[in-house]
Amino acid sequence: MLNYRNELDKMPSYDGVEKSYRIKVNANESTMNLPPLVEERVINRLALLAFNRYPNEEYYSLVEQIAKNFSVDTSQVLLGSGSSEIIEKVFHAFGGAGHKVVYPQPSFSMYKIYAKAADAEGVPFNLDEKFNLNVDEFIKKIREVNASLAVVCNPNNPTGNALTPAQIEKIAASIECAFLLDEAYVEFYGRSAVNLVKNYSNLIVARTFSKAYGMAGARVGYMIAQPEVTRMINRTFMPYHMNVLTLAAADIVYQMRDEFVPRLQMIIAERKRMSERLKKIRDVEVFPSEANFILIRLARAEELKNYLESLDIGIRYFSPNAFGLKNCLRISIGTRIENDEVFSAIKYFLEGGQ
Amino acid sequence: MLNYRNELDKMPSYDGVEKSYRIKVNANESTMNLPPLVEERVINRLALLAFNRYPNEEYYSLVEQIAKNFSVDTSQVLLGSGSSEIIEKVFHAFGGAGHKVVYPQPSFSMYKIYAKAADAEGVPFNLDEKFNLNVDEFIKKIREVNASLAVVCNPNNPTGNALTPAQIEKIAASIECAFLLDEAYVEFYGRSAVNLVKNYSNLIVARTFSKAYGMAGARVGYMIAQPEVTRMINRTFMPYHMNVLTLAAADIVYQMRDEFVPRLQMIIAERKRMSERLKKIRDVEVFPSEANFILIRLARAEELKNYLESLDIGIRYFSPNAFGLKNCLRISIGTRIENDEVFSAIKYFLEGGQ
Repeated sequence: MLNYRNELDKMPSYDGVEKSYRIKVNANESTMNLPPLVEERVINRLALLAFNRYPNEEYYSLVEQIAKNFSVDTSQVLLGSGSSEIIEKVFHAFGGAGHKVVYPQPSFSMYKIYAKAADAEGVPFNLDEKFNLNVDEFIKKIREVNASLAVVCNPNNPTGNALTPAQIEKIAASIECAFLLDEAYVEFYGRSAVNLVKNYSNLIVARTFSKAYGMAGARVGYMIAQPEVTRMINRTFMPYHMNVLTLAAADIVYQMRDEFVPRLQMIIAERKRMSERLKKIRDVEVFPSEANFILIRLARAEELKNYLESLDIGIRYFSPNAFGLKNCLRISIGTRIENDEVFSAIKYFLEGGQ
Repeated sequence: MLNYRNELDKMPSYDGVEKSYRIKVNANESTMNLPPLVEERVINRLALLAFNRYPNEEYYSLVEQIAKNFSVDTSQVLLGSGSSEIIEKVFHAFGGAGHKVVYPQPSFSMYKIYAKAADAEGVPFNLDEKFNLNVDEFIKKIREVNASLAVVCNPNNPTGNALTPAQIEKIAASIECAFLLDEAYVEFYGRSAVNLVKNYSNLIVARTFSKAYGMAGARVGYMIAQPEVTRMINRTFMPYHMNVLTLAAADIVYQMRDEFVPRLQMIIAERKRMSERLKKIRDVEVFPSEANFILIRLARAEELKNYLESLDIGIRYFSPNAFGLKNCLRISIGTRIENDEVFSAIKYFLEGGQ
């Protein structure tokens, strides 16, 4: 018998399963590939790469762009393979035996797994029935368990609702421990808390290229915090954890990020349109969303998911064990044509040919 | 004060620093980019990617190719961001408080860091003055400290020498714990131990695309072990840790791996030629190598390194604290033209205009 790490056999695995669909609105991806002009420049850049050399200045080139955009020092920015790796490493940095990580539930299902991987104790804090976070109680809980790390996803996945910058600031100001703010969906909300980093030495903001920038496949995320914090977190990253293809592609995408503004506006407009239409279907509860997806609740959720799959439409259904998400479905916002087809299918399933 | 992971502030950092040189033979990279035909097909493949989708079948496509090549089941192969990530995760899987990892020194300087990152105790085992590993004593040490993991880099970096497959088998057969065989340089040696995996349930072989396949920048490595082992190690990898650009590029490179055979043969021939020539320089000790580099020892090592840098030639010099490597320099094998220039510069520096 090999002597594995303690409890490795109990590591839970991620409950998302990737599969192809004709209309794929299950994973909060952008349903559009890169804008053609951006893609062309990315490919041209990739054709100039030295595949044979270890990554070097490509990392710093992207860091410089990001630092400039947020008016922070380059020492305040770290890159990761998606915000996934950022979150994994932040959990690791504040993990270890006896360390506790507090996060709301339901939220991103990986927090529980990252806590376990970091040998920390995950302490979920329940959202109310409408998925609102009681900020005062959350702060109380963090203090009560003497957490080393608190985590908030804002806007929250998979519920879609968001705390205000003032609420985020209240949390940052009221706790002593590190505070990881996962802003994976913030471009669809428009109210980032990055500007609070200068005032709160415990605040770490994680961002990603996976959602608004349509780069889920390339795996690129970043974090912004005060230099003492990035210096410590950086110790958890192994050399050459980022590859040149991703770095070079992200560098072009970030240079050309204005090209993504029209589609961001389209997704926000479509989210509003879809929400309004879904609300008109009887027996469907539609939760408010500031992200690129909408959460709904209805009695026949599992049946509806199966019906949509039969049409080769993938949406996100949650395991009956997922806290608070019984009978919930999460639908990512696609193009107008995709959204119309998804809506029509839902309406037909629930109301028939009326 | 934030409550960081215990001892995070003591995490050592990697001692390699990447820098550009006119002739760069300091990092055991391939000094040649991809063969033109391979590069063209890689770029064509990248132009077809869905950047916006999370990676999915690309991972399995490469796993299938590798499994087929080694006549193992696909359940026996895991991919990582370079063999670096493979090693990081294997150390993690056998790490934790009270767990010990035994590895020879001098060897790959990251083993010490991976052990620390895994909360394990690193136990170095000294090679002799000629950098040979006393296999019986190594086995004894592994048993004596009740290690959870033993690691051997074969051929060894930075010394260049190699254990025979029989010696590897003896270690695998004589220890109870997991045995990670890091074969980063094995294509330059030709004697892999992958075929031993079927007989030894403790053996894990790590391989990389960074050296022989000229893909250091793309970060792709893999491991082969028995299915029960890969199933456990896989729990340490977070979802989507590999990106589609790397996976798609590596898939093409692996399909076209025959295109790399001539350059492998060139490097092996050049290694032999350089060794013979260096041996003729007085006061230079040349260590035998089965890898894509040569280790030499000479009294004026640091001075020579500085002289070569003044010519914009980068070679690897080791910190005076690096065990056993006092006055050693490691020179990667480049093209014939590069090797000739490096050799001439060394000869001129040591023997002058004779």
